[in-house]
Amino acid sequence: MAVYTEVTDEALRAFLADYALGALLAYRGIAEGVENSNYALRTERGDFILTLYEKRVDPTELPYFLGLMEHLARRGLPCPTPVAGRDGRALRELCGRPAAICTFLEGVWPRRVRPDHLAPLGDALARLHLAGQDFAVTRPNALGPAGWPPLLEGCRAGGDAVMPGLIAELDRQLAAILAAWPAPGVLPVGQIHADLFPDNVFFLPDAQERPRVSGLIDFYFACTDLLAYDVAVCLNAWCFESDGSFNVTKGRALIGAYAAVRPLSAAERAALPVLCRGAAIRFLLTRLYDWTHTPAGALVTRKDPLEYLKKLRFFALAETPEAIGA
Amino acid sequence: MAVYTEVTDEALRAFLADYALGALLAYRGIAEGVENSNYALRTERGDFILTLYEKRVDPTELPYFLGLMEHLARRGLPCPTPVAGRDGRALRELCGRPAAICTFLEGVWPRRVRPDHLAPLGDALARLHLAGQDFAVTRPNALGPAGWPPLLEGCRAGGDAVMPGLIAELDRQLAAILAAWPAPGVLPVGQIHADLFPDNVFFLPDAQERPRVSGLIDFYFACTDLLAYDVAVCLNAWCFESDGSFNVTKGRALIGAYAAVRPLSAAERAALPVLCRGAAIRFLLTRLYDWTHTPAGALVTRKDPLEYLKKLRFFALAETPEAIGA
Repeated sequence: MAVYTEVTDEALRAFLADYALGALLAYRGIAEGVENSNYALRTERGDFILTLYEKRVDPTELPYFLGLMEHLARRGLPCPTPVAGRDGRALRELCGRPAAICTFLEGVWPRRVRPDHLAPLGDALARLHLAGQDFAVTRPNALGPAGWPPLLEGCRAGGDAVMPGLIAELDRQLAAILAAWPAPGVLPVGQIHADLFPDNVFFLPDAQERPRVSGLIDFYFACTDLLAYDVAVCLNAWCFESDGSFNVTKGRALIGAYAAVRPLSAAERAALPVLCRGAAIRFLLTRLYDWTHTPAGALVTRKDPLEYLKKLRFFALAETPEAIGA
Repeated sequence: MAVYTEVTDEALRAFLADYALGALLAYRGIAEGVENSNYALRTERGDFILTLYEKRVDPTELPYFLGLMEHLARRGLPCPTPVAGRDGRALRELCGRPAAICTFLEGVWPRRVRPDHLAPLGDALARLHLAGQDFAVTRPNALGPAGWPPLLEGCRAGGDAVMPGLIAELDRQLAAILAAWPAPGVLPVGQIHADLFPDNVFFLPDAQERPRVSGLIDFYFACTDLLAYDVAVCLNAWCFESDGSFNVTKGRALIGAYAAVRPLSAAERAALPVLCRGAAIRFLLTRLYDWTHTPAGALVTRKDPLEYLKKLRFFALAETPEAIGA
């Protein structure tokens, strides 16, 4: 739940004076988004999203995120377009925080994922990867394989209180994942979203009532990493049912639609199971870290790390690409 | 902070099929509002607010609230208008909860109250009272004088932990307030908002950049009670500075603009100080009750009850109407 920074109307009007957006007509805090403060903003020029970047975002990385969004939007990807002020800059400051205004995207994110969401998702993800190919700036994946051992160290003291034996299991799993991880140069690298969960993908029905992607949002984990790792994140985030079972029909639809736009190499298909284990341990570790480091009374919704332990165990047993739909 | 009920897109689309609002284009949870879940909703017919009524609202009282809003809106007051479904009913059900769609109002609520907000506020409050005169349904004020002694009883066990001696002081203050409270029939009664805090009043600047009221929202404490009590609530909620001092210029502007639309009788002016003490103890007691009954880890922002102890003490010393701007 967001809106950490309360923006006064005077401060917002002064901020808007640096844009050519006309007068302020309305703004409301948005309850979605975890890391930043988001406001739905209406001016005489239309609807926008105002984001204030809170302390978990490194301000020096914001030009990469905003530059990537602008680049992708210019190539036709439906993602928020940063709006520049009169001086041409999109990244500005409000209430002592970095802030930016982006375009508003219509659509609804699926609270319950249906099989027919997966093909449009795969299609959009592949288009994101293609559109990012000529974006020259790079950003290492801070939450990639090199980041997992220190994260696990940070969880060592408190982890077994969440589940007895958890840390020993994660030690074993992480060692196996790192040993099997693709060597540099083997798989194609590019700009990836790295956090494409259902609440970051908006859909609208087309004339035949089939869902189509109307927006991809929240690029604040985007980085330069293995393209197939983004597919693995989506297999984790979109293809499990609420009872913990993996829906291979969803996996096939995702991968098939992705590959129809950007063919996966044999090496990428073969690597998908270990990439899925990596994505599972990445979300497990960050959730576990937050779980064990968040004070009990904090006004933050903690996400269950053990959901991802189940996913990790599933992918550790499903060693063939076919078992996950590839 | 709101959005307690997560509405799936399927459930929302099915719900919208009972309205003539066209297809769903977007919806986002709104971070404002304390009691209910609110969504900003966009359909082919425009923008709306969807409210799901959570457990603190008594469903049998919703027809009064929605009926009053519709009545006031029809008389030109800028307040949310309930939107009826195809069968003519505005109060419906979604995700097992009572739910209603209302029109969206433009405007911005003042995070920092300036003196020039008070005259438009007083004007709008008086118009609300006049527009409500021919609304025949009544609702007793559950948080009026009869409700304060049981509320204080509910705080007795935990109150002194908030501040030593607090309960004894509240016993004395409440007895004095109830002894001085206007007898039935002395002051005019009507439909009052009863919770007209700054976050429930939207403003937009007019052509001369002066604030004008563009919306009054959140009628879920509305009831049938002394009209001047609504003025007393606003004197509490709008006229104190952040250092705890009372700004008599704001008080005069509020009362003056109110009386220009609906003249206050001599009896109402004379009663304002005790009505202000009553309003102060009402918000003090509900905040104290929440403070002492909310588990430490609950995901709810508790409001400081002692802010209203300072206001209560101020009004208890300021016994003349002139001292508060009347």
